[in-house]
Amino acid sequence: MNYVCSRCGRTEPVNTALPCCPCGGLWDLDYAAPAYDAAAVDPGEWSLFRYHRFLPVSEPDWRAVTMGEGLTPVIRLDEDVLLKMDYCMPTLSFKDRGAAVLMAHCRAIGVKKVVQDSSGNAGNAVAAYAARAGIACEIFVPEGTSAQKINMIRGTGAVCTVVPGSRDHCAEVCREKVAREGVYYANHVYNPFFYEGTKTYLYEVFEQLGRIPANILVPVGNGTLFLGVLYALEHLQASGVIDRFPQVIAVQSERCAPLYAAWQDGQNAPASVSPAPTMAEGIAIGKPARGEKILALAKKHGVRFVCAPEEAILPAREFLAKRGIYCEHTTAANYSAYLEYCRIYGKTPDCLIPMCGAGLKSEH
Amino acid sequence: MNYVCSRCGRTEPVNTALPCCPCGGLWDLDYAAPAYDAAAVDPGEWSLFRYHRFLPVSEPDWRAVTMGEGLTPVIRLDEDVLLKMDYCMPTLSFKDRGAAVLMAHCRAIGVKKVVQDSSGNAGNAVAAYAARAGIACEIFVPEGTSAQKINMIRGTGAVCTVVPGSRDHCAEVCREKVAREGVYYANHVYNPFFYEGTKTYLYEVFEQLGRIPANILVPVGNGTLFLGVLYALEHLQASGVIDRFPQVIAVQSERCAPLYAAWQDGQNAPASVSPAPTMAEGIAIGKPARGEKILALAKKHGVRFVCAPEEAILPAREFLAKRGIYCEHTTAANYSAYLEYCRIYGKTPDCLIPMCGAGLKSEH
Repeated sequence: MNYVCSRCGRTEPVNTALPCCPCGGLWDLDYAAPAYDAAAVDPGEWSLFRYHRFLPVSEPDWRAVTMGEGLTPVIRLDEDVLLKMDYCMPTLSFKDRGAAVLMAHCRAIGVKKVVQDSSGNAGNAVAAYAARAGIACEIFVPEGTSAQKINMIRGTGAVCTVVPGSRDHCAEVCREKVAREGVYYANHVYNPFFYEGTKTYLYEVFEQLGRIPANILVPVGNGTLFLGVLYALEHLQASGVIDRFPQVIAVQSERCAPLYAAWQDGQNAPASVSPAPTMAEGIAIGKPARGEKILALAKKHGVRFVCAPEEAILPAREFLAKRGIYCEHTTAANYSAYLEYCRIYGKTPDCLIPMCGAGLKSEH
Repeated sequence: MNYVCSRCGRTEPVNTALPCCPCGGLWDLDYAAPAYDAAAVDPGEWSLFRYHRFLPVSEPDWRAVTMGEGLTPVIRLDEDVLLKMDYCMPTLSFKDRGAAVLMAHCRAIGVKKVVQDSSGNAGNAVAAYAARAGIACEIFVPEGTSAQKINMIRGTGAVCTVVPGSRDHCAEVCREKVAREGVYYANHVYNPFFYEGTKTYLYEVFEQLGRIPANILVPVGNGTLFLGVLYALEHLQASGVIDRFPQVIAVQSERCAPLYAAWQDGQNAPASVSPAPTMAEGIAIGKPARGEKILALAKKHGVRFVCAPEEAILPAREFLAKRGIYCEHTTAANYSAYLEYCRIYGKTPDCLIPMCGAGLKSEH
């Protein structure tokens, strides 16, 4: 199992601490999961590692790291919409999927310390799973990050370094540390093991429903969940378990839509955009590092993009809360985008929407 | 299926809106679940309603109300301790178990509006599940309840009424409204359907581990979880599925320990205590309404009580967070009580401890 550079094709063993190829290209993971087979699911494991035979990690690593993440329920919202309650997780967001698999890998290759930059859920998840794995951790957050999130990160024993300036600058400071000190970069965008974890979102849907819904809506900022879902669908299709792709619907914020714009214009690379502040901060990524890959997969599989209208986010959050589901703003944007999709394309039944983060994680 | 008064034995059909017997006694539920049989578990239902054949609710009610609560993972903390991650729930606490079953019942008997008094997790859970069930809801909270909790309650569309004075006075105001207006009292102490929901905690443990751990630690304030666990153990034993009871360990706060004190003195009723402020607010109940029942069950099954030392709560919370698990203070008290139990009784392996509430729910 090797890393392969997505730009120049160079390979490197997966035990490398290089965060990306020397050419600057991001690593893809050369891992061919065995064909999906329901009989290979481990029914006695009540976490996403019930799919361990399709994941590039092994025992005892995943067993030492798991906190029972995954196996989140799918519930019916109304006659058209199913919700996957993916915030019912140890750190209250879907990012636990990626963090669990990545930290299992880090444990396997003997990593002693990781760093990560994040203003939100990914930082919480990496800090918690690093703690669980007994790996030292430092999280870089931009100034303005809430005291609550910083407390959660520091609670795990991780160092939390607040960086003056923008979110992008915060990432630069973190990457400089990686380059300077050779410390392991446990980043949800750079590290391909993260996507191996988010694949399980789709495996669970398939096992829980016994089928894949006709429409799969997925938020896309850096594409953490999107890439996992697409890779898992390709895996199921290649395994002959599903015969056609569902309609995947990719959600961006109307205030920050570089992939939506590129898709609309038929471009292969993210458009250059000037992000405006949005309540959907979790998907407000101006320069998604894997944007070309996301757009290529979108073209290949007929993915449609839709923007969450900013003014519809709070009403969507209220609508869901009045049905018992209290989610964060970025998650509410998923539902507002669904309504926008229906406005454009017509009534859309059998649509699965992820509830990615718990409401208490949102700022007020 | 009837209610039976725990004091005078009077029976009443379960569709009554009487919150308790006219004599003042609390209702027990005369429900005899069929013998537990693994083959009767519904494997296609990924919520606590996979045990619907052992619960006093039926379709379409539970299916309309479920938000996928339950099936929380059991993970290993160390060689002696297993943790059940019971905050991985729609409203981030174990109270969803009781609220889901109670609201399914309310839907079944046509309740249009419920009231509840709670300063914490039970109020969040009842408000959310009432919203899900389409039932109007009013939650009474004492002054000093955090804006965050009030926002969560109001977010569901429930009325949240802040009552000046103590927690006990808040309950009195709520019960006066019940008496005056005949509105349904969806209370986790009064209403026995709540305990039917918390039984599933133990059913899950049995299914997930294939056995019952030797030591089952349970926090006890009003006994919401304790009663469910004891009833479920009795059910498993009567069904011939387990041959002996585990050692149940009941946790109280050292600042508010009416049941601990009664147990130590061999009394049948809760001791009269003067509660002092504690971080373990979720179990700080000075006058547990079902105290005699709790003590009778404790005597019958050899339950041991232990107090969580106040000064050990924050260190326990930090200890757990440094292993990835960020829980609320009342939940951390469970772990500090485990350490206290080991100090008194010696090393205690194979102990299951519930992680009842997410850390973000605690006040700072």
